[in-house]
Amino acid sequence: MSRSKQVIPNVLAERYSSADMKSIWSPEGRILVERDYWIAVMKAQRELGLKIPAKAIKAYEKVKKNIDLESIDKRERICLHDVKARIDEFSALAGYEFIHVGMTSRDLTENVEQLQVLRGLELVRLKTVACLSKLSERANEYRTLMITGRTHNVPAQATTMGKRLAMAGQELLIALDRLHELVERYPARGLKGAVGTQLDQQTLFEGDAKKVAALESKIVEHLGFKKTMSNVGQVYPRSLDLDTVTALEQVASAAANMTTTVRLMAGQGLMTEGFVKGQVGSSAMPHKVNCRSSERIHGFCTILKGYAAMASGLVGGQWNEGDVSCSVVRRVMLPDAFFAIDGVLETYLTVLGNMGVFEEAIAAENAVQLPFLATTSILMESVKAGAGREVAHEAIKEAALEASKFIRMGRGQEADLVGLLAKDERIPLDLKELQKILSQSKRFIGAAPQQVDQFKRSVAKWERKFPEGAKVKPGRLL
Amino acid sequence: MSRSKQVIPNVLAERYSSADMKSIWSPEGRILVERDYWIAVMKAQRELGLKIPAKAIKAYEKVKKNIDLESIDKRERICLHDVKARIDEFSALAGYEFIHVGMTSRDLTENVEQLQVLRGLELVRLKTVACLSKLSERANEYRTLMITGRTHNVPAQATTMGKRLAMAGQELLIALDRLHELVERYPARGLKGAVGTQLDQQTLFEGDAKKVAALESKIVEHLGFKKTMSNVGQVYPRSLDLDTVTALEQVASAAANMTTTVRLMAGQGLMTEGFVKGQVGSSAMPHKVNCRSSERIHGFCTILKGYAAMASGLVGGQWNEGDVSCSVVRRVMLPDAFFAIDGVLETYLTVLGNMGVFEEAIAAENAVQLPFLATTSILMESVKAGAGREVAHEAIKEAALEASKFIRMGRGQEADLVGLLAKDERIPLDLKELQKILSQSKRFIGAAPQQVDQFKRSVAKWERKFPEGAKVKPGRLL
Amino acid sequence: MSRSKQVIPNVLAERYSSADMKSIWSPEGRILVERDYWIAVMKAQRELGLKIPAKAIKAYEKVKKNIDLESIDKRERICLHDVKARIDEFSALAGYEFIHVGMTSRDLTENVEQLQVLRGLELVRLKTVACLSKLSERANEYRTLMITGRTHNVPAQATTMGKRLAMAGQELLIALDRLHELVERYPARGLKGAVGTQLDQQTLFEGDAKKVAALESKIVEHLGFKKTMSNVGQVYPRSLDLDTVTALEQVASAAANMTTTVRLMAGQGLMTEGFVKGQVGSSAMPHKVNCRSSERIHGFCTILKGYAAMASGLVGGQWNEGDVSCSVVRRVMLPDAFFAIDGVLETYLTVLGNMGVFEEAIAAENAVQLPFLATTSILMESVKAGAGREVAHEAIKEAALEASKFIRMGRGQEADLVGLLAKDERIPLDLKELQKILSQSKRFIGAAPQQVDQFKRSVAKWERKFPEGAKVKPGRLL
Amino acid sequence: MSRSKQVIPNVLAERYSSADMKSIWSPEGRILVERDYWIAVMKAQRELGLKIPAKAIKAYEKVKKNIDLESIDKRERICLHDVKARIDEFSALAGYEFIHVGMTSRDLTENVEQLQVLRGLELVRLKTVACLSKLSERANEYRTLMITGRTHNVPAQATTMGKRLAMAGQELLIALDRLHELVERYPARGLKGAVGTQLDQQTLFEGDAKKVAALESKIVEHLGFKKTMSNVGQVYPRSLDLDTVTALEQVASAAANMTTTVRLMAGQGLMTEGFVKGQVGSSAMPHKVNCRSSERIHGFCTILKGYAAMASGLVGGQWNEGDVSCSVVRRVMLPDAFFAIDGVLETYLTVLGNMGVFEEAIAAENAVQLPFLATTSILMESVKAGAGREVAHEAIKEAALEASKFIRMGRGQEADLVGLLAKDERIPLDLKELQKILSQSKRFIGAAPQQVDQFKRSVAKWERKFPEGAKVKPGRLL
Repeated sequence: MSRSKQVIPNVLAERYSSADMKSIWSPEGRILVERDYWIAVMKAQRELGLKIPAKAIKAYEKVKKNIDLESIDKRERICLHDVKARIDEFSALAGYEFIHVGMTSRDLTENVEQLQVLRGLELVRLKTVACLSKLSERANEYRTLMITGRTHNVPAQATTMGKRLAMAGQELLIALDRLHELVERYPARGLKGAVGTQLDQQTLFEGDAKKVAALESKIVEHLGFKKTMSNVGQVYPRSLDLDTVTALEQVASAAANMTTTVRLMAGQGLMTEGFVKGQVGSSAMPHKVNCRSSERIHGFCTILKGYAAMASGLVGGQWNEGDVSCSVVRRVMLPDAFFAIDGVLETYLTVLGNMGVFEEAIAAENAVQLPFLATTSILMESVKAGAGREVAHEAIKEAALEASKFIRMGRGQEADLVGLLAKDERIPLDLKELQKILSQSKRFIGAAPQQVDQFKRSVAKWERKFPEGAKVKPGRLL
Repeated sequence: MSRSKQVIPNVLAERYSSADMKSIWSPEGRILVERDYWIAVMKAQRELGLKIPAKAIKAYEKVKKNIDLESIDKRERICLHDVKARIDEFSALAGYEFIHVGMTSRDLTENVEQLQVLRGLELVRLKTVACLSKLSERANEYRTLMITGRTHNVPAQATTMGKRLAMAGQELLIALDRLHELVERYPARGLKGAVGTQLDQQTLFEGDAKKVAALESKIVEHLGFKKTMSNVGQVYPRSLDLDTVTALEQVASAAANMTTTVRLMAGQGLMTEGFVKGQVGSSAMPHKVNCRSSERIHGFCTILKGYAAMASGLVGGQWNEGDVSCSVVRRVMLPDAFFAIDGVLETYLTVLGNMGVFEEAIAAENAVQLPFLATTSILMESVKAGAGREVAHEAIKEAALEASKFIRMGRGQEADLVGLLAKDERIPLDLKELQKILSQSKRFIGAAPQQVDQFKRSVAKWERKFPEGAKVKPGRLL
Repeated sequence: MSRSKQVIPNVLAERYSSADMKSIWSPEGRILVERDYWIAVMKAQRELGLKIPAKAIKAYEKVKKNIDLESIDKRERICLHDVKARIDEFSALAGYEFIHVGMTSRDLTENVEQLQVLRGLELVRLKTVACLSKLSERANEYRTLMITGRTHNVPAQATTMGKRLAMAGQELLIALDRLHELVERYPARGLKGAVGTQLDQQTLFEGDAKKVAALESKIVEHLGFKKTMSNVGQVYPRSLDLDTVTALEQVASAAANMTTTVRLMAGQGLMTEGFVKGQVGSSAMPHKVNCRSSERIHGFCTILKGYAAMASGLVGGQWNEGDVSCSVVRRVMLPDAFFAIDGVLETYLTVLGNMGVFEEAIAAENAVQLPFLATTSILMESVKAGAGREVAHEAIKEAALEASKFIRMGRGQEADLVGLLAKDERIPLDLKELQKILSQSKRFIGAAPQQVDQFKRSVAKWERKFPEGAKVKPGRLL
Repeated sequence: MSRSKQVIPNVLAERYSSADMKSIWSPEGRILVERDYWIAVMKAQRELGLKIPAKAIKAYEKVKKNIDLESIDKRERICLHDVKARIDEFSALAGYEFIHVGMTSRDLTENVEQLQVLRGLELVRLKTVACLSKLSERANEYRTLMITGRTHNVPAQATTMGKRLAMAGQELLIALDRLHELVERYPARGLKGAVGTQLDQQTLFEGDAKKVAALESKIVEHLGFKKTMSNVGQVYPRSLDLDTVTALEQVASAAANMTTTVRLMAGQGLMTEGFVKGQVGSSAMPHKVNCRSSERIHGFCTILKGYAAMASGLVGGQWNEGDVSCSVVRRVMLPDAFFAIDGVLETYLTVLGNMGVFEEAIAAENAVQLPFLATTSILMESVKAGAGREVAHEAIKEAALEASKFIRMGRGQEADLVGLLAKDERIPLDLKELQKILSQSKRFIGAAPQQVDQFKRSVAKWERKFPEGAKVKPGRLL
């Protein structure tokens, strides 16, 4: 009998997410973190003088990996309280009742979920560095390959393929700055009790504030947070989740903008995102090489907008010291947003690795568009040669519109913009001077190659900071 | 070994959704619909003259329930094309190759997914009628029970508990109108081929347009749609998904607004959403009866806002005859939006069934607030007795502010608004007349009871139209 | 001194919206509706026996067009209550105090705002019909003009330019169905008093329920609504605003999807959205004909998504009989959403009127792509001639990939797909048979022309229903 | 004739925004920044050797404050290009043609708009510090005032009013951390030319890369940015706008969550947001003191969610080196998001200044709820006295449910929880011991006062960093 007969799978996790990301957010992964957490609390409580037998702690440790989701599920369907079900299961396995003492549900769940978020953010940071490495490598490869730059989707000026990639990298660098800042200051809620006053812990330690503080800092340190909030209620402020999810969205944006351009270039036959071995294209149109990975990144990005909207939906809606109208939202939004960004990064790494640029097709396009792309240079040179800016602009515009008619007839190679300009009295340049301008192809790409170099240097800083980033390899896409 | 070791479950489906809704959207459910669809196409093609052996069709029919998701999954991980994997699996099981002839992937998937949507909408419509029945029953039960109506969350005027429920019902009636209209006109994409021109079908039938039309109408009819689109590309316009998801959101709104008020009333000790037998409250605060179901409905509503944002994200983004950047979005958004609304309706039905109103506490609140609630009536009577509207308003305001000071001291029962007004010369009514006004408690609830009756009549129309609605019972909540 | 020194203008209204739409939502327009409404209420109250002097009503009527926003503004900045400021102003002008008797603020504002919405929706409906007329005209013009249809942004199969427009029209027809249904059932809140029980009106008429009902139906009829809600609180359910705004978004989607394709086609030199006389293109790149109108439509669509998110934000957030946390949201969202959709429709009408298709360029593209576009037909014919579907598919795929290499080199005209296939033994068709297939260009466009005809018929129904639609002309764009 | 006859005003700016914020985003404010920018460019170009006469620069400087929006508007309605209209106007006034040389439209607009954003963010930062100061002051005022803390909107445990304010402050501190990081790293696009390669500047300086770099750094420095992007296209990546708008949303969240709790407390008669002198309440219900400011903050927050959705809508949608489908979106979204957050902060400062806490009413509530609030303590003490946790929990739960029946009857003062527990054998504490626990009211508020102190210290750091923050006073609200 097949697996899914029993359970409807999480599509984002099962189809698109890596093993690393799934292990952070899977039910088993979470329970393991929880049990480690309870054990750490018991140990710290014992150290601080509570009567918890060492052998009880050992008994818990011994069974902590014995995770039976069905048994927990059965318990929950009876008591209708998920935390209690997990407490009972763990204690039943261990044969003791020492976990969760002096704690409320949220002392457990808030911190465990924040830990999942933090680990998720760190994994995203690492993969973002990996994408930057690949972008830097590719940008360098095409550092001086002139392409027809476009604005409003029509030819505008020359640039290089390397610069186009570096431009996408710039956006990713900005997103990484933000992500990194968030990771570095991400504050834990800590052990604060039912409404945030630490009353329960104070009671447990008979009002000994130092012990309460010691317990909390031991635990927070165990979890690996750098900061702790001092003033919370039952829950931490949910606008922190908005920060988290929109930081992921910003990373996705950098990938989606680049791959949108990949789709456009593929449509003009200038490049391909690559074709994975064994992949079957459209059954009806066998020759097609579709940008399905690039399209998929756009899709993940739209999905993240939805999770960002859920995070927005939690904003301003907290009542008093906390309610749980956010609970079901966060059960869905947090793991699924991380699965989606993981899908983005896995797919983007694959595209950056497999993509191919069709240099001859690019050259053919340049040949048709170059005279038009050169109009800015021609305008500048005309102004330097004494023409009025507006007058020269008008002359060039007229000639360009005239010449571009051939392009509109699908006969781009016949458009003779240079010839028309040479004859125009308003332009103080002759045919030879004009052709000389055109022949200096390097002058049309401006500072593009140097900008690529600068991008490479920026990436190198991150590579030094997170050397494991360069080693990340994407899994095989579905 | 436990189920979830192998797969991360869809939380919305597994924790909150009914068996009926899950059967529409589960992988198995979908494959069964697909196979039925392929078989229907083969039969229709055979009837229209294509050479498809009867025994091949029988072979397919025989194995159609033999659904092995793991095997399909393995195939997809090799060919990287989900539809091809499912074609190959089904044909391998049957031992023939006659399905999907003259069809493209989207001829299959668009229609199958639309069918899932349509069945989902019909189920939501039925459950909405069920909620209306319950609301009508409850509104009638509390038809004349006077409560302290509130605007800006402070006491404003009297109304009845029944009217409050009918008010929530009014919103649901409007949502149902929209939902019903959508179901009735929901148009199928139909068999349109790779870019929507029916070329593939025309080729198959050697240009016989009548046969092409006959094939499509047989299939669309088989699926149960009332309308077919005539002009589509590869895909149907995704703004139809926006219509679908926001129609669900509108239904959720009606439930969430009511249960937000339940949460407010519970906070004032006036009612409870009920406590399911066996349920464990907060472990730290055993006396608390939390509105977790009401809060959860608010959460589902926030989730639906997120899926509506995903649907918005698809708007305006279609390229040419279609691309698949929407694909992964719809894989997530459509089932999950339906699971979320199903969670809303299951939970709402439970709350409407279990909720309890604390009549004594309501009466106690009324006793304190009644003189204040009566100010509108006192103002009206004063105007009728000759006072200027603005002058009387000013006098009442002063007295009300004076008397309300006692409320602010937590001593509401000592506030003597009537006494103050009787002494005020600007008010042309004496103590006796004022007390007479207050004693006519019925006059304060205005037309509330009659409005409840009108609501009941409106619901009755829907109950007659969908008699099965009244029979729907919610499952046990987690 | 210039106008804007004093006031920051509403960009959407002032730059992009038509005079008709502005008159519905301008401060003056609104106040005029309000004053008409108050006068209608006075008249009805007088008819039903209240002592309101005829000459008072005349006095109000005489000054109703005397709208001094600054004076009202000054009043509001003193009393901090917008409705009171407007009551006082109107009464001061008239020299009487008879308006707003027995009414609360929301008895005024809810109905007036709903009236603005209704009139806005009707205007949008009319302009949608105008767009459909233009689409139908244009689709007919290009009914058989073969173009290279694309999916995933790469050539897929042939279609016609007319069909591409009809496809966009199909989406607009679906949006119009929804919009029309909404207009037809849009229900008024009516005169319901402070918390919806009609207590204030009952008090005014000394409990005479018939008179209360008569007053409300006179007023609602005066406003032009077809339906009235029976059960409301202080406010009507805000999910009705969600219905409104997302209905507008759906209309925008149909325009934005089409103009996204215009942008893509312009990028390939196949068409232009047109160039308005006098328009100045990019100063740096004079030859460029940018799709700024099409891009702008996409922008408006994104704006509408934002207003839809605001409408979503109101969902599920109503407390008790109503609060005003929605007030400032609706002040922004409602007019601005209508200004934005008006911008969409004005711009879309302009594009549909001015756009130009470059038929030679289209033919040149077809010449390169036709053999590839024909692969589906070749596959079908091969299957009919006895080849196995999968085998033939494989052969065609190999040949197509081989031939397409020339396209990737920018030398599309040299790709010889047909030659390769003729030599392949797996394909049971010779060169002559293959060329015959290619020569029947009509066969590649399938049912596209007939689909255009069907679209035309669908539009004609709406044109008959709203004959003024065809007369709508867009204003000059900025 | 009144101002608005001519123009529909921006509601957010005109009704809710401060003069400081309006001056950043008004048309005049923007044009002044632009003209300063052009002059700075001319000066730098002259310094770097371009032939720009000093008297021309003076001529421009002389007329820069001569801003005639109507004249510019007329120009734009002819040329249909907003930047050209503003160039022509300024040059016509000066009598020269030296501005904008070597620049494209985006070299102007991107940097000017980024400057508006940066100044807006800095103003928001300052006002956030002002709110924190006020929160700190108020939290200190109510540092030990015990209130009934609530979770799920029902009484849970005691806390203090000061802690509740500090909790709101914690969220604002986190938002400020993020906002501050953004301001500090907010990078300028710089002078990059038509597609980002600096070709136009290079041409102007005949390929002298050093001069190009010098020009850009002079200008960026003049604008006051700390960082410049090295790799952009025509535009800077729009995900930076997402960062901006969601940072504002996060600030709003902290205000909206607090004022949501204000609305809840007002509903229970425990506090008021204050009543501005002269303010008129509901005309129908004169005694009501509505939380309209608090509700309005919630409304602004919903508005910001909409602008965040617009920012999300720009994510992933950039084509090639840039298009302008984002243009109209940013014209609306950026100023309006800043007007909305300004409305939040002005309103929040007012509420924090005017709010009043009803201490007697709070004490009355505590008297009823204290025994219930004490259950956690009683549970702890019972466990310490030898009871099993689960057994004691069960006993307390039973007694609490029993006693709470009186609360449900509106007779809270009669509930005798302590008496019931004293009689229960499962609880190892007698009546005296139980009453002793209750009498130690200080023990119920846990570490709340110390947490307030910690909040105060955190705020003090920001006050030292931005001493002007404490001086910000809100304007008078409408």
